[in-house]
Amino acid sequence: MTRCIALSGGVGGAKLALGLSKFLSPDELLIVANTGDDFEHLGLTICPDIDTLLYTLAAIANPETGWGRADESWKTMKALETIGGETWFRLGDRDLALHLTRKQQLSSGKTLSDTIANIAESIGLKHPVVPMSDQPVRTMVRTDIGELPFQEYFVKNQCVPKVTGFQFAGVNDAKPNPLLMDALRDPRLEAVIICPSNPFISIDPILAIPGLREDLRARSAPIIAVSPIIGNRALKGPAAKMLRELGFDTSAAAIADHYGDLLQGFVIDSQDKDLANKLETKSRRVHATNTVMKSLEDRVTLARETFAFASQIQTPQTV
Amino acid sequence: MTRCIALSGGVGGAKLALGLSKFLSPDELLIVANTGDDFEHLGLTICPDIDTLLYTLAAIANPETGWGRADESWKTMKALETIGGETWFRLGDRDLALHLTRKQQLSSGKTLSDTIANIAESIGLKHPVVPMSDQPVRTMVRTDIGELPFQEYFVKNQCVPKVTGFQFAGVNDAKPNPLLMDALRDPRLEAVIICPSNPFISIDPILAIPGLREDLRARSAPIIAVSPIIGNRALKGPAAKMLRELGFDTSAAAIADHYGDLLQGFVIDSQDKDLANKLETKSRRVHATNTVMKSLEDRVTLARETFAFASQIQTPQTV
Repeated sequence: MTRCIALSGGVGGAKLALGLSKFLSPDELLIVANTGDDFEHLGLTICPDIDTLLYTLAAIANPETGWGRADESWKTMKALETIGGETWFRLGDRDLALHLTRKQQLSSGKTLSDTIANIAESIGLKHPVVPMSDQPVRTMVRTDIGELPFQEYFVKNQCVPKVTGFQFAGVNDAKPNPLLMDALRDPRLEAVIICPSNPFISIDPILAIPGLREDLRARSAPIIAVSPIIGNRALKGPAAKMLRELGFDTSAAAIADHYGDLLQGFVIDSQDKDLANKLETKSRRVHATNTVMKSLEDRVTLARETFAFASQIQTPQTV
Repeated sequence: MTRCIALSGGVGGAKLALGLSKFLSPDELLIVANTGDDFEHLGLTICPDIDTLLYTLAAIANPETGWGRADESWKTMKALETIGGETWFRLGDRDLALHLTRKQQLSSGKTLSDTIANIAESIGLKHPVVPMSDQPVRTMVRTDIGELPFQEYFVKNQCVPKVTGFQFAGVNDAKPNPLLMDALRDPRLEAVIICPSNPFISIDPILAIPGLREDLRARSAPIIAVSPIIGNRALKGPAAKMLRELGFDTSAAAIADHYGDLLQGFVIDSQDKDLANKLETKSRRVHATNTVMKSLEDRVTLARETFAFASQIQTPQTV
């Protein structure tokens, strides 16, 4: 019985998902990962957000980089360099094992969901992490130097080009993950949490899946977003830079505006508590608390507060 | 101007090819690799014979295993083990760089020949190593436990099953490498050397390419095989075991019989020099010398002798 759905991108989202997993059982929590960052590289299918979630929940993530595995080595990358291979996207030796296994399973006809479930099981993960869709969706970033596949914008060009927009290639043919649909239709669902991930590149690809926005509106539980913006900056990644370049304020208010009436709850950092009154509306409650997740305890606390916040929100059943 | 074509499998063939490369220039030598051992694994395309040739000629081969790279580490394999991935076929961390680069290039539509040429260039190889064909050919081994893809017979089952025959899946759609065809048609060609490789699994897949046997017969230079059998055993690999299981003598004589009238020259080991008279016919000369290639000097000496042997053989121009 799914009590909570978490929609997540990479690092920040994974921290909150980890927090949720500490008090919700595997049956009670469904973690839905953005796949818009996925890309084909060196003949492999790389799924950065899914992998960050898997590694974070399995406690084998690299705490310094925010991506990849802890205790990593780079022999393959070094050899790739010497043979003139592409090394701009760093794949550690241990990390490669996951990519190879996934590619093998995908090549044998398995769905992305199946391969992720198999890998999750093999690393001892109990909480389900599912891709938003089994059909490939690829975020393309429109910039002042042209349209770039996401990882070329993000890693190769280090987010330097000025962003003018996004498109999610393939999304019109994408179906939402069946487990997500089942959970959304379950009347016992208590909360949909939009993790503190980049709204443009981590959450919007999920919301762009045809029909999903309507299904979200039709669910009985409140939708609560945790702001990835604190003060006027993002803790990690280009969210603030993107907001600026797209002509928005770089504040939690811009995040609330972005999600609009999809939200019934919005969690902002205590630093921004002055915004609470401004952002609270008849249909949107606001909760201010510490959203900077440095320790495991921070993660669990924010997750507990966010989930508890849901129970305080009356959501009119819209269907 | 190609003066010499070498048809080669893995380890033994690569040793002789290395010897040839020490006195023939890159223009003068064409090394044609068996691809029947190739297979798809972990989503990659593994080409064991090509890679052994590349690594051997670039002097980065692992001298102990006979495959893979020297100074290798196994981090990815170890991580694969912990996530329940397939580890029966060992891919070293540095070796993986080559497989990833090849897969990337194949995925982008390049031919196998192009990818090998790119990789060879990147590791500083000057002598051309080309796949026998750009179309996939996959050796299937018929055994007492059923038909096995080659690497499942060779590595997974460690050559234990009793062999009853072979088939080369895909060979009917394979075209010979254009560089091989050009070289065969060059009237200045002086020798075609069949390296001391396993006739059944390293050379027969090459000879099975439609039309190639006829083209070999039509060339003006003599075809000389170096026996992979010395006394009644193979220096490496299952050639002797296969001969036995297929009902043949385990001797150099069986190798001569196997190639039949394709050969105008046959090089046997000094240990087998008593066979020389028996094996020499009106159309097939025999040369006995040391064929055990322990040192680089051994390799160059055998290569020089074999190439020189060709010049002593009159081959009637058959076209």
